Amino acid sequence: MAAQKPTLPKGTRDFGPADVQKRKYILNTIETVFKKYGFMPLETPTMENLSTLEGKYGEEGDKLLFRILDSGDYLKSLKEHNDKILSDESQDATFAPSVSGKLIDLEAKAATKFISEKGLRYDLTVPFARYVVMHRNEITFPFRRYQMQPVWRADRPQKGRYREFWQCDADVVGSDSLLNELDLIQIYDEAFDSLKIPIQIKYNNRKLLDGLSQLFGIEDKLIDMTVILDKTDKIGIDAVVEELKSIGANLDSLAKFQTVFQLPNLTTKHLNEFFSSSNEIAKKGVDEIVKIAEYLEVIYGSNNRLPITHDLALARGLSYYTGSIFEVVVNDDRCSLKSSIGGGGRYDNLTGIFGLPNVSGVGISFGLDRIYDVMEELKLFPEQLRATSTQVIFCHFDEATQLYCLPALKLLRDAGIAAEIFPDNKKLGKQLEYANALQIPFAAIAGETEMQQQVFTVKNLITGEQQSCSTQALISLVGQ
Amino acid sequence: MAAQKPTLPKGTRDFGPADVQKRKYILNTIETVFKKYGFMPLETPTMENLSTLEGKYGEEGDKLLFRILDSGDYLKSLKEHNDKILSDESQDATFAPSVSGKLIDLEAKAATKFISEKGLRYDLTVPFARYVVMHRNEITFPFRRYQMQPVWRADRPQKGRYREFWQCDADVVGSDSLLNELDLIQIYDEAFDSLKIPIQIKYNNRKLLDGLSQLFGIEDKLIDMTVILDKTDKIGIDAVVEELKSIGANLDSLAKFQTVFQLPNLTTKHLNEFFSSSNEIAKKGVDEIVKIAEYLEVIYGSNNRLPITHDLALARGLSYYTGSIFEVVVNDDRCSLKSSIGGGGRYDNLTGIFGLPNVSGVGISFGLDRIYDVMEELKLFPEQLRATSTQVIFCHFDEATQLYCLPALKLLRDAGIAAEIFPDNKKLGKQLEYANALQIPFAAIAGETEMQQQVFTVKNLITGEQQSCSTQALISLVGQ
Repeated sequence: MAAQKPTLPKGTRDFGPADVQKRKYILNTIETVFKKYGFMPLETPTMENLSTLEGKYGEEGDKLLFRILDSGDYLKSLKEHNDKILSDESQDATFAPSVSGKLIDLEAKAATKFISEKGLRYDLTVPFARYVVMHRNEITFPFRRYQMQPVWRADRPQKGRYREFWQCDADVVGSDSLLNELDLIQIYDEAFDSLKIPIQIKYNNRKLLDGLSQLFGIEDKLIDMTVILDKTDKIGIDAVVEELKSIGANLDSLAKFQTVFQLPNLTTKHLNEFFSSSNEIAKKGVDEIVKIAEYLEVIYGSNNRLPITHDLALARGLSYYTGSIFEVVVNDDRCSLKSSIGGGGRYDNLTGIFGLPNVSGVGISFGLDRIYDVMEELKLFPEQLRATSTQVIFCHFDEATQLYCLPALKLLRDAGIAAEIFPDNKKLGKQLEYANALQIPFAAIAGETEMQQQVFTVKNLITGEQQSCSTQALISLVGQ
Repeated sequence: MAAQKPTLPKGTRDFGPADVQKRKYILNTIETVFKKYGFMPLETPTMENLSTLEGKYGEEGDKLLFRILDSGDYLKSLKEHNDKILSDESQDATFAPSVSGKLIDLEAKAATKFISEKGLRYDLTVPFARYVVMHRNEITFPFRRYQMQPVWRADRPQKGRYREFWQCDADVVGSDSLLNELDLIQIYDEAFDSLKIPIQIKYNNRKLLDGLSQLFGIEDKLIDMTVILDKTDKIGIDAVVEELKSIGANLDSLAKFQTVFQLPNLTTKHLNEFFSSSNEIAKKGVDEIVKIAEYLEVIYGSNNRLPITHDLALARGLSYYTGSIFEVVVNDDRCSLKSSIGGGGRYDNLTGIFGLPNVSGVGISFGLDRIYDVMEELKLFPEQLRATSTQVIFCHFDEATQLYCLPALKLLRDAGIAAEIFPDNKKLGKQLEYANALQIPFAAIAGETEMQQQVFTVKNLITGEQQSCSTQALISLVGQ
């Protein structure tokens, strides 16, 4: 076979040792927090039935699903279908045009059912809902689960957007208590604090958006309204007001909205003044915000240090949210990424689509790949992260000294010290070059003399210091 | 939308919290050993181009690849192709039969290129070879990498065989030293020892198999020979000898083989006597076995405690192995799984298919899912593995006592103790039921009295003991 130049599918990436260590650093940090807050791990399969996935992410989402060809003679049933048309039509005089018409079945959507019934996981929320429904009788509710797995979307790849990327989700289902929201806010705070990423948590409530559409007199245009509100960061409040006007929002309320929105400190008092007391749904939303603020004050005192702000324009495309809505953005001017690195909210009927109604859930998500990019840009990865775990490399001059290293190597590993021996008979310079390239901190060098004296010349490859060590002394030195 | 009963694609599985904890226990144990031996992590994408995958796993492998439909109008080019045939043919009198013939393009293989150019990762070795070739200029050789990721095969699902399963591989490329084999043998030993799975490591060398085919006078039937040898465990040595006879192995050598094979302790001396001194390739194979035995003796002494045996019939379908061949089986009669839980070997030209010849590599693989099944069957998982990490759950009677718990909950978490509060206002019995179902060890109960005295009634849910504790006392108690 002729050698081929290998490539990767677009939008996908390899992660070499240094990358994986950094990614693991993020994943481990987030996972540690999830566990500390009592969340339990779940993993779902990479492939889901299309019946599980389709129709859950909107029309756009359906287009972005990666579909898997059925195995075996995957086009057989399609061919049989077409053969049948051909044979039916062959007895027909007006053949060609009508066949061509029926063979439209070959086009995208219609043909899919013949050749594909599985797709790649698109997010972690729908598989979680499916899991909850399938295992409802084994699960102890409220169910606090976290899930850290890749998802796939056939999006146009661009900076910061990949076709394979990881989500880290924490959700609670089976409880409508706002204490869950409190936990999730604290998880965001603690995880990003551990990662040293300065953030802003934006908070809103779907009920306020519903109330807002009432106030504007455009309840029938809720989605249009939220699409416009979602653009506030990009186009500014004045342009947003103009657009809201164009879809029929009443002018009085718009003027009030513009004022309230620009207040440096939007308090409950402002909100209550803004929404009329007859606006029941908005009132519920305000109550929820008050409750969460109360919880935060009990924990952090009145000088709440949490970087959380209420953003009346936050909608996150609404999707399935029914209560709280969260979004996390980086709060550092040096950061080029303006979009969110996390988000979530409460959904009151996610499992309903799979036949289990009235289960309230609330959850948040961390976007690993964006967090990675932010940490690279802001240089936030700890310096001590190295590609290899090796602490000591044994170097030698010939077969005899190589053999001499082996028992010491075993003793180091038995002591829990990551160590290796340079496997080939190469010049010492080559061996140390390898050690330096991998940033291995210590080289234990064995020559004729060392072997006779039952020691190693141990070189600290960072400082250049050298000393003669027995195996035990070496273990003490490195184990420090 | 009507509620649908969700299902999973066949051969795939959800892993609930308890399952994930067990799987993580295995993965972490293996990873700890990989790292201690100086292996570095690599992760490759789930999707690979079909050009990378096809032709690498034999004809059977190609059939088992999961193929991904191109996104967008994935059948458009296929339709254009067919429309062209139809329009060409519509000017032709002898229409129908010939069209039907050309539409054979719709059948499996031929049509694939129109609709799919990506597939799911089938193993970790080919993506690793691809990675090495693509990154050859950045990699420091010898390159010691480990990789723990799922792979997918459209195999018929059955007990112990899944369509999505995990492999854990460690490979060294760019070194032909047998010290690498030594490391890999020790890794197998140490990892399975940590997991408490009694194993037998079978070892053989491709060069002995080549030598054997010479000895039998059936060099041209090497593959047939190894297929027969691979059946030894199943059909026994006598039946194997019969089958070898039927493909032309010479009788003298077969008789000798039968004797040698059944020796309780196959030594180098036996092997040298068995293979004629003119059998150069066999001689090389024996030398390699001798060398590895020598290394093991230097480390473990002459009473080598390692559970490794030379098995002259071990071939593992040969695949791409050129030197050492390894296989690990469970050495416990109670275990129903008779097939291997790990395997590997040396390959001298794996990167050659991607244009980088003469790079020697050697590697081993652990099969996570089979190891899991074995550990379940032999009851080897540590008893203390629990689904949740939570150590303390706060229970309460009303909104006031709920609020009272919050600062204490925060203090516990700040002290690194995994803790949660029951989020809803339910009866204490319900709350403790939840705690017991999740095997949470401690409940910190806050009633009116506790709140007044600034304490919690802490109940050990395993022993039933109860005591009154301040938050600090609770932290000390649980942190023990």
